[in-house]
Amino acid sequence: LLTRKKSKTPILGIDLLGEDICSHEYILETLQYFYKSIDVSFDLIVFAKQNTISYLEKEVKLFTGSGGRQCALFAVNEVIRVHDDPLHAVRRKKQSSLCLGIRLLKEKKIDAFISTGNTGALITSAKMHLPMLEGLSKAALIALLPTKGGLVAVVDVGANVYCTPQQLVQFAQMGVAYQKSLGIRNPSVGLLNIGTEEKKGRKEFTEAYTLLRNFPSFVGNVEGREVFSGNVHVLVTDGFTGNIFLKTSEGMTSFILEIMSSSSKLLVKEIKKTLYPVECFGAVLCGMDGIIMKCHGNAHPKMLTYSLQRAIHLIQNSFLEKLKCNYSRG
Amino acid sequence: LLTRKKSKTPILGIDLLGEDICSHEYILETLQYFYKSIDVSFDLIVFAKQNTISYLEKEVKLFTGSGGRQCALFAVNEVIRVHDDPLHAVRRKKQSSLCLGIRLLKEKKIDAFISTGNTGALITSAKMHLPMLEGLSKAALIALLPTKGGLVAVVDVGANVYCTPQQLVQFAQMGVAYQKSLGIRNPSVGLLNIGTEEKKGRKEFTEAYTLLRNFPSFVGNVEGREVFSGNVHVLVTDGFTGNIFLKTSEGMTSFILEIMSSSSKLLVKEIKKTLYPVECFGAVLCGMDGIIMKCHGNAHPKMLTYSLQRAIHLIQNSFLEKLKCNYSRG
Repeated sequence: LLTRKKSKTPILGIDLLGEDICSHEYILETLQYFYKSIDVSFDLIVFAKQNTISYLEKEVKLFTGSGGRQCALFAVNEVIRVHDDPLHAVRRKKQSSLCLGIRLLKEKKIDAFISTGNTGALITSAKMHLPMLEGLSKAALIALLPTKGGLVAVVDVGANVYCTPQQLVQFAQMGVAYQKSLGIRNPSVGLLNIGTEEKKGRKEFTEAYTLLRNFPSFVGNVEGREVFSGNVHVLVTDGFTGNIFLKTSEGMTSFILEIMSSSSKLLVKEIKKTLYPVECFGAVLCGMDGIIMKCHGNAHPKMLTYSLQRAIHLIQNSFLEKLKCNYSRG
Repeated sequence: LLTRKKSKTPILGIDLLGEDICSHEYILETLQYFYKSIDVSFDLIVFAKQNTISYLEKEVKLFTGSGGRQCALFAVNEVIRVHDDPLHAVRRKKQSSLCLGIRLLKEKKIDAFISTGNTGALITSAKMHLPMLEGLSKAALIALLPTKGGLVAVVDVGANVYCTPQQLVQFAQMGVAYQKSLGIRNPSVGLLNIGTEEKKGRKEFTEAYTLLRNFPSFVGNVEGREVFSGNVHVLVTDGFTGNIFLKTSEGMTSFILEIMSSSSKLLVKEIKKTLYPVECFGAVLCGMDGIIMKCHGNAHPKMLTYSLQRAIHLIQNSFLEKLKCNYSRG
C-alpha cells in the first residue's frame, strides 16, 4: 500500500461503494473534487472494483497534482450492500471495501476511514476489530444538525437501541470532545427528553440527569421543539430516540421544502443553504480507537470532500487523544 | 347545571384556564367564536373564575343566540397551573376546573370535556375517575400531523413513557377508530421505527410488529423521514418516542419558517395554512370511557372551535362505542 512519510502526512481510506450501483464517473468526480478543494497534504487509499480502477488509473496522476500527494487504488471484489444483514455480511464478506477499511484502520495503515456503506455493517465491523477507548463502553454515532444557534452534535443517532445512564454520560463526553474539535470552547450539553423537569421521561434519562449534574456545562433536559433554538451544542440521547429525532427533522424539512418549491424555487435554494450546510453531512462513529466517518450512499462529492477535510482535521488535532483525556478528567 | 334535553343535544364542558393568566376577553372571544362558527346544536358548560363570570354573564345571552342553545357558567376557585406536579395537584385541587370537568364526565353530566390545562394532570385525573374501555389497558394521547398525503394520527404522543407490544397494538386500534371517525374508510397503520426491516428497533417494537401482522392494513415499520410522505394514516409509537417525534417536527417547522420569514412573509403565511391546518390542533385522550380533548394553553379561539366541533362529531358518531366494537373484533 502506501508508505508512511516522515512528515506525518495523514493517510485516509475511502470507501465509495455504498450504493449498489456506483459509477466510475462518480468516483472520478469525487476524487477530482478532493484534490481541487483540499489544500493540506494527505494521502489516499481508494477502494474500488477492478474495472473502475482500470478506468481511473490513467487519471490519477492528473488529479493528484504536484506536491507528492499519493493516491493508491485498492481493488476489491466484494461489496456489502445496503440491505445486507450487517452481522451476516461482515462475517461472509471479509474482502469487502468496508471490512478491509476497518482492518487497515486497526493495523494503523490508515489514520481515518470514510465510508458510504451499510451503517449497521460499518458499526459491526468496527466493534469486531477496534478496541474501545479507555473509559468508554459503547460506540455512538454523532451527527451534526443545524439550529438557530449553529450546529448541534446529536449523540447517539443510531448505534445503540438501548443505553444505560452511564453510557448517556459517555455520549455527553464524546459530543463535548467533538464540538471542541470543531472549535467550540465550552460546549453546553442537553438531554433530549419529553419535558424540562428533572424527573421527566424514561428511567435511564432521569438517572443520567442526576449523573450529568456534575457536568460543568449541563443545561438540563431539552424538548424536541427547543433543540432548534440552538441552546445546546451537544444533545444526548439513546440511538433509538436519536435516530427518530434525526430522521423526523429531515422528513419535516423535505416536506416543507416541497410545499415551498411550487411557490418559490429561488427561496428554496437559499433556505437549503441554511438547512443543509455541508458541515452537517456524514456522521462520526465515535468511541473506538479509530476515526471513522459514515456518509450517505448518495453523498455529493462536495459533502464527501467536507468529510475528508474533517477527518484530516480530527487526525491533526489528535481527536482520539483528547477524547481519552476528556473522559478520564470527567 | 344544565338539564339534558330529550333531543340528545350534546353537552360539552370546556376548561380554558390552562395558562396561568387567562383574560376575560380571551374567554369571551372564544365563546363568541364557538357560537358564530358552529351551526349544530350543542349545550356548553364553561369553567371560569367568579370575576370572569360576572364579566361574561351579561354577554352570554347575546352570543348563544336563538335556538335554545344553553351556556352555563361554572364558578371555580382553584386552577391547576402549567408547572404544578400532576399527581400532587390533582389530589389537592379537587375543585379545580380540570378535576371538576373530569368528574362531570364521569357522572355523564357532560358528553365530552375539552381542556387547555396541564396535560399530566388531565391524564392523571382521567385515569383516577374514568374506567378504561373494555379490552384497552392504557390511555393514549392521539395527535394529528400534516403530511403530503393528508393527516396522520400519531398514537401515543405522551401519555405512556413505556409500552408493551400489546399496548402498541391497542394504540393501532385507537388510531384506526379515530381516523375512521374522521372519514377514512380503511386507515393504514405503520410502526414508527429506526428501519423498515422487521427486526429493527426496540424489543417491544419487534414484538408489536409480529402482532400487527394480523392487522388488515398494517404496512410495517416507518422511519421518521418517511412519515411525511403520507403513506400511513395511523402511526403507532410509545409516548416517549411519539412526544420526541411530535415536538421535533414542530421545532423544525418553526425553525424553517423563521428562516423564511426574513425573505417572504407572504409565503410563510401560505405555508402555515398547510403546516398548521386547524384540524391538527388539540390531542384526544383515548382509551377511557369519556371523550377528552386536550388543547394548547395558548390556543387560538379558531382552534378551540375546531376541537369543540370535533368533540361534537365524536359524540354524534358514537366514537366510544365504535372503539369498543373495533377492539373486540381486532
